[in-house]
Amino acid sequence: MRVCGKNVFNELDYKSVRKILIADNFKDKNIINKIKENKLKYIITDSKIMDKMMPHNQGIIIDIDDFEYASLDSIGDESLVLMLDHLEDPHNFGAIIRTCEAAGVKSIIIPKDRGVIVNETVMKTSSGALNHVNIIMVTNLVNAINKLKSQGYFVYAADMDGDDYRHVDYANKVLLIIGNEGNGISKIISNNSDEIVSIPMRGTINSLNASVAAAILIYGIGE
Amino acid sequence: MRVCGKNVFNELDYKSVRKILIADNFKDKNIINKIKENKLKYIITDSKIMDKMMPHNQGIIIDIDDFEYASLDSIGDESLVLMLDHLEDPHNFGAIIRTCEAAGVKSIIIPKDRGVIVNETVMKTSSGALNHVNIIMVTNLVNAINKLKSQGYFVYAADMDGDDYRHVDYANKVLLIIGNEGNGISKIISNNSDEIVSIPMRGTINSLNASVAAAILIYGIGE
Repeated sequence: MRVCGKNVFNELDYKSVRKILIADNFKDKNIINKIKENKLKYIITDSKIMDKMMPHNQGIIIDIDDFEYASLDSIGDESLVLMLDHLEDPHNFGAIIRTCEAAGVKSIIIPKDRGVIVNETVMKTSSGALNHVNIIMVTNLVNAINKLKSQGYFVYAADMDGDDYRHVDYANKVLLIIGNEGNGISKIISNNSDEIVSIPMRGTINSLNASVAAAILIYGIGE
Repeated sequence: MRVCGKNVFNELDYKSVRKILIADNFKDKNIINKIKENKLKYIITDSKIMDKMMPHNQGIIIDIDDFEYASLDSIGDESLVLMLDHLEDPHNFGAIIRTCEAAGVKSIIIPKDRGVIVNETVMKTSSGALNHVNIIMVTNLVNAINKLKSQGYFVYAADMDGDDYRHVDYANKVLLIIGNEGNGISKIISNNSDEIVSIPMRGTINSLNASVAAAILIYGIGE
C-alpha cells in the first residue's frame, strides 16, 4: 500500500516500510536523517512524476506493508470502545481515528462490508494516529456487540431522539456506536443497543458532521 | 457569488437568489417545485457544462448576492460567542458554522485579513447552516475582544497547556477563541484572553482537527 505526507512518515512503524520515494526538491532534513539513520530504502524521484502518482504528497511517498487489522480479542479492559456502523467517508474515518488517539480510545470496530476501510486517505487524514489505535474489522457487527456485552460492555448507539448524552449515567465499560453519515444507525444495531444517546440540536438543520458528533460524544462520555 | 448543491439550495434565503442553473438530468421534484412556487429565475443547462463550472454541484448551481457579513453590534445577550483567530481551512470553517448552528451559537467573529472568508466551499461544507449564524468580520480582533469584555464577556482561548476545559467554571457570557490550524492562538490574542482552556490529550500526537476541537469545546462549555 502507498501512503504519503510528512506527518504520515513521522508516525510510521519503520518495520512496515518497503520503499520510499523522495521528491528531487524535498528539503526536510529531519526526515532525510531519519530515513538514513534507520537505513530505509529510498529513491530520489522527479516531483512531477510523484504528483501524478499521489497528489498532495508533500514530497514523500512511502510504500508500506498492507494494513493489518486487529481482532476483537485484542480488546482488553478498555473503558470506551468505538464501533462505526457503516461509516462511508474516509475523511470522517481519519478524523475519528485522530480524535480517538487524542482521547485515549484504543479500539475502533468496523464492518467488513459496505463501509470505510483503511486506505491512503484514511492514513493521511488521521495524521499518523492510525499507528496508535487498533482498527478491528469484523464480519458481523451484531456478533461483535454480543461478544462485548458478554465482557461487561454497555452499548450506546448515537442517533436522533435518544437520551441527551449529557444526562446519561454511563457504565464503566462503554461501547459507543456511530452510524452512517446519511442513514444513521441501522435498525438491527439500534435493536441490539442498550440505550440510544443524542446530541441536543438547538438549530434548525438537525445534523452534525459524523466526525464532529463522534468527538463530542467521545469527550462527553470520557468526562 | 456562485454556490451549489441541494442542501445549500434548501437553506437559501430566496431573496438573495439571482439565477439558478438546473442540470438537464436533474430529478429532485421538491426543489423544482420550490423554484417554481417562489418564482425564482432558472435556466436548464447541460450537466457537463455545469460540472466544468463547479464540480460536485449535485445538478444545481445558484447565483446569489454576495455574502453579507454582520457587524459586532449585532451581538446581543448571547451566552456563547465564537471567534476564529486566523483559521485557514474553509472546510474547517464550514464544519464549525454547522456545529454552531446545531449548538445554538449565533455569532462567529473572524478577522478581515489572513484567514477564512465565506466562499463557496464554506457555504457547501456548512450545509446551509450559514443562513442561521451571523458571521462578523472585523478589522482588529483585539478591539473586538475589548468591546465584548466591556459588555460583560469573559474570554477563553483554546490552546495547549491551559486549564482542562472540563474543570473550568465558565462565566455567563463566554467568548471562545479557536486558533489557527498550524500555529494555534496568536500571542496578542492569548495576552488579551482571561483564561487559556485545553482539551486533554491522552495520546502521543497532541493535536485535534480544529473543527473537532471547536465542537468539543462548544458542547463542553454549553453543558
